[in-house]
Amino acid sequence: MAVATVCWTAGAVVLLDQTKLPDEETELVCRDVAALVDAIKRLAVRGAPALGVAGAYGVALGASRHDDPLTGARDAAAELSVARPTAVNLAWGVRAALTAAEVAAEAGRDVAVAALAAARGIAEQDAAASDAMAAHGLPLVPAGARVLTHCNTGALVSAGGGTAFGLVAAAHRAGILRHLWVDETRPLLQGARLTAWEARRAGIPHSLLPDGAAGSLFARGEVELVVIGADRICADGSVVNKIGSYSLAVLAEAHGVPFIVVAPTSTIDLATASGDDVEIEHRAGEEVTSYAGRAVAPAGTIAYNPAFDVTPPRLVTAVVTETGVARPVDAARIAALVASS
Amino acid sequence: MAVATVCWTAGAVVLLDQTKLPDEETELVCRDVAALVDAIKRLAVRGAPALGVAGAYGVALGASRHDDPLTGARDAAAELSVARPTAVNLAWGVRAALTAAEVAAEAGRDVAVAALAAARGIAEQDAAASDAMAAHGLPLVPAGARVLTHCNTGALVSAGGGTAFGLVAAAHRAGILRHLWVDETRPLLQGARLTAWEARRAGIPHSLLPDGAAGSLFARGEVELVVIGADRICADGSVVNKIGSYSLAVLAEAHGVPFIVVAPTSTIDLATASGDDVEIEHRAGEEVTSYAGRAVAPAGTIAYNPAFDVTPPRLVTAVVTETGVARPVDAARIAALVASS
Repeated sequence: MAVATVCWTAGAVVLLDQTKLPDEETELVCRDVAALVDAIKRLAVRGAPALGVAGAYGVALGASRHDDPLTGARDAAAELSVARPTAVNLAWGVRAALTAAEVAAEAGRDVAVAALAAARGIAEQDAAASDAMAAHGLPLVPAGARVLTHCNTGALVSAGGGTAFGLVAAAHRAGILRHLWVDETRPLLQGARLTAWEARRAGIPHSLLPDGAAGSLFARGEVELVVIGADRICADGSVVNKIGSYSLAVLAEAHGVPFIVVAPTSTIDLATASGDDVEIEHRAGEEVTSYAGRAVAPAGTIAYNPAFDVTPPRLVTAVVTETGVARPVDAARIAALVASS
Repeated sequence: MAVATVCWTAGAVVLLDQTKLPDEETELVCRDVAALVDAIKRLAVRGAPALGVAGAYGVALGASRHDDPLTGARDAAAELSVARPTAVNLAWGVRAALTAAEVAAEAGRDVAVAALAAARGIAEQDAAASDAMAAHGLPLVPAGARVLTHCNTGALVSAGGGTAFGLVAAAHRAGILRHLWVDETRPLLQGARLTAWEARRAGIPHSLLPDGAAGSLFARGEVELVVIGADRICADGSVVNKIGSYSLAVLAEAHGVPFIVVAPTSTIDLATASGDDVEIEHRAGEEVTSYAGRAVAPAGTIAYNPAFDVTPPRLVTAVVTETGVARPVDAARIAALVASS
């Protein structure tokens, strides 16, 4: 891709501004932490692994821009880790870079250099994890499968090929993917804007559908597999993911279709027992009451706009990570995935 | 409502222009048949019962504007009945008014007065049917219910209070409705544009949600009842309705929530055995890939865009009509509803 999803260039964090896709491929140059926090809140960069990478680079940015690099790293970490409360990878990436900064400070080494090295390491690990997830997931894709996916989980959310979409693309390259059904994923239309764009670039046969049309595909027997990503996986295997995922899980179960979650182990949060304990981010009502910048509901309409929903482990056929597969999904198998990472 | 969906005022057919909603409440005064035909084609008036009423008033308009009222009525009928070829209610309303005009001409009575009386009769019957559906459905609404609905089924599609929305409004007036959840209803957003507008005017506490967010409401136990309308009900009780209805039915069953369909007996099609026999209309992909002229997916993206889906009778708790309630839903009870109409 011409513009990388997130990278470090000339002392700044450079993002592909995803809010401009598919119309424009625009670089967003964040020269200070405030600009990066704003970009994260606006979803210019999004998706669990990419947020981890962006958060780590942000700590390096804070360190490099402050007279006292350790203070700069700490201030950046405090701001960045709360930019999106449900995204566990963001806080994880921030913490990893901050730890590197603190260790360097203790040892008298260059704090900013250490934080940047940690961030680059996270990006490299992430790229390798994409490949490993696809390799672990591929045996779970039936030959000739028509796969339904939700939201955007490809190279735009990752320093590598992505999570769910990375597996879909691997299945396509392996010649076993018949068709990809792309949920448009209201309210922010990541499926329409981003996944359709990635599918097109990858040459994957695909169709875009309103989220409400997925049920009719199941009823007609036109879905062999559902593959989604995750924003957080709890200790019991509950999957927190983009709003609309849970409906697909219920439909998949009702029609005997496997429902697979692909995510790196950094998404697994053993400190959170189950989905009941997760604070779900509710976003601005304008995302629902307007469409492509134009109001579609009466002024003053209240919206119910949670960013995520929770799918309980009993509805998840398998969790695929870079370290292996949990199937069936239970607390012991989830813990084992983390232990082997 | 300040502007009626369709009415006869000062020798003209007056419509609430639905293409302007929710931004503007504009009266569209049709002083001749050509203006009314144009309004119907542009969807300024829509919805099966409302089209029947509009067509009948149009015949009266043609009679009143012609030197020879019977010729005027016949010319109007010819033009109006083909304005939307698939709308059976439109042709039905036109035919009823034309028959009244012809009978009057034969008997030497005033043709225009007779056509207008027939049109008013259709409007009154439609309003009475709305009231009867609401009365039959009300005992099925639990006190304090939070009701989820889909698409637009209120006064905008009817000379009365509507079908599903008519029941919701009756529950509100009876003080037993706690909250109305309004699915935005992609791709054409009838929920956002029209149902939210009707709920606001009726003073009903409501929230608008992306269709994919309904699952999380069920999971959180925040829905006590689903109420939708129908475009067609087959002999076995299969319900053909706006795309997205089937997903709600599956979710409702998975969470033990009743799923009620409200529709006049004219919607029941005993000649169609089941949903398998219904040819589903697939609409233009642009409805999904763009909004208000702005593309939201890459150019050339293929969309899966069926207008309707089919909910099998086992997922429908009850069918409510103006003649009574079928519960459970089976072929014998559906036939009995028609027999008593």
